[in-house]
Amino acid sequence: LLEEPPAYQTVLKEKLKAGLSYPTASAAALISYFDDPALNETISQPNNILGIYYMKALMKRKSTIKPYTLLRCGSHYHEEMLGSKSDVGEAEILSSARSIRHSIASDLPLSEIADHIPAQVLQLLVQHQGQSFPITTDDFTAVLGYRLLNEMNKGFTDYIDVSENLSDRIVKEVGHYRSLSDFIDLLKTKDFTHARISRCLMHIMLGMQNETLADYIRSDYIAYARPLGFRNDSVTLLSAAKEHTSIPLLGKLADAKNILSPKAYAMLQEDIYASHVYQLAVAQKFHTTFSHEYQRRIIKI
Amino acid sequence: LLEEPPAYQTVLKEKLKAGLSYPTASAAALISYFDDPALNETISQPNNILGIYYMKALMKRKSTIKPYTLLRCGSHYHEEMLGSKSDVGEAEILSSARSIRHSIASDLPLSEIADHIPAQVLQLLVQHQGQSFPITTDDFTAVLGYRLLNEMNKGFTDYIDVSENLSDRIVKEVGHYRSLSDFIDLLKTKDFTHARISRCLMHIMLGMQNETLADYIRSDYIAYARPLGFRNDSVTLLSAAKEHTSIPLLGKLADAKNILSPKAYAMLQEDIYASHVYQLAVAQKFHTTFSHEYQRRIIKI
Repeated sequence: LLEEPPAYQTVLKEKLKAGLSYPTASAAALISYFDDPALNETISQPNNILGIYYMKALMKRKSTIKPYTLLRCGSHYHEEMLGSKSDVGEAEILSSARSIRHSIASDLPLSEIADHIPAQVLQLLVQHQGQSFPITTDDFTAVLGYRLLNEMNKGFTDYIDVSENLSDRIVKEVGHYRSLSDFIDLLKTKDFTHARISRCLMHIMLGMQNETLADYIRSDYIAYARPLGFRNDSVTLLSAAKEHTSIPLLGKLADAKNILSPKAYAMLQEDIYASHVYQLAVAQKFHTTFSHEYQRRIIKI
Repeated sequence: LLEEPPAYQTVLKEKLKAGLSYPTASAAALISYFDDPALNETISQPNNILGIYYMKALMKRKSTIKPYTLLRCGSHYHEEMLGSKSDVGEAEILSSARSIRHSIASDLPLSEIADHIPAQVLQLLVQHQGQSFPITTDDFTAVLGYRLLNEMNKGFTDYIDVSENLSDRIVKEVGHYRSLSDFIDLLKTKDFTHARISRCLMHIMLGMQNETLADYIRSDYIAYARPLGFRNDSVTLLSAAKEHTSIPLLGKLADAKNILSPKAYAMLQEDIYASHVYQLAVAQKFHTTFSHEYQRRIIKI
């Protein structure tokens, strides 16, 4: 499978051309390749496809990481409804992340999801509600719209995954831009899924270009790792990671310029930029203090 | 005065250098030039200075426009308090625009300003409240912040009125950006007034460049006029204007490309762009329909 036999590749290409998303097309190609009905259900689950790709990546890199699999409990990935006590009896309710996001985006009170998330998470959500949370798609309406207005003359094919066809559609439809979520729906066609368009528009908003991505890939993808926090009693884990990794581990951002190569530093700047664009949406929505990456410290608990 | 005698120019330059705004510096220079205490109060009123500049422009252009002066009634320009019935007895209350804006920006109910604006205006404000009104400085926080993040590496001296010094300050302080109004206060110094900085940041947000402005000036400033509406019973006035003007009058935007020169069309595009940036702030704030310039019609009442 690592070599992707031609029979598999042919079906994959066909399915992608027919407009299927990459995971769905991969699943279809795998099913057709193995031709074993017993595998069909396993392969069709999006998280399993993802798992297969993780394994392939580990094998390709000859990584020493040993993968373990866990059986998914509770709701399926695509389930939109929160789980309920009556379904599980005394067991813990396990709702899909999608259903939890859905509940938050619908502006339901946080008490609705209290049974579906860990108590510490609920506490954090309550604490940040109305301060920096929740931020949803349409909180980026102005910023993305502004970028579209600014660059419509040169088109958007420089950005990752934006085909000429999609770029043309964006330019043509920008006159009907109302909100980000509305615009995604507007651009959606048989060939462009909602997920693909969302991703493309995010690439545009964050200025993520094909050229830069190609450059990152040439440099073996990831140029640094930045732990955002750790538990004090797991500090040995962090030290072990530091010892066994081939990329620098970044503690304080202020040290980055000295520790990182110019290319790694540029990658970090893109990362920080994305975080700041997010913070602008927060500042706009809640009129609260902009939280700067350079002011953040690594979190120890 | 049209020739700006050297004595006047010297004082003007001195005052500008000392950090005064252009109107204040002009007033000081005029007062020093005429050396007549009887004129001092007249000259110090900002609207009078503006009037003098209008007259100078008419004279410079040898315009056939005949200026008429009107005595300002009611509040002074800088007055922040709304006028009150007790001050004027039976006469109509005339409050300064500044005090009315101040009341709106403070989120006071519209009934507070009902006595201070024409009934038709009040009706329009009520009608648009929560739909597209009010929009205040901080509704542009995300969009301006985004532009600052995007261009901080190249600096902002390409934009009208942004000195190297101010550009450097912006780049240095962008890490403390919280909101637009807060940022203006942050950048304010003895040398840069609040008004100047606001104007500069607007130039940046709207992409208004020195080079383009110089080009417009070379082409005699204004390349078209676009009436946004007229009263049906004044249509003869519009026809007369059409006859006596040397620049095209634009009715429908769709005709612009055929009617206007390429340079005039570029100017119109800048105009439309500014309007769309404003509409993005409206869409972001009120989640209502983006109102496109090309969909607008000339208003007839």
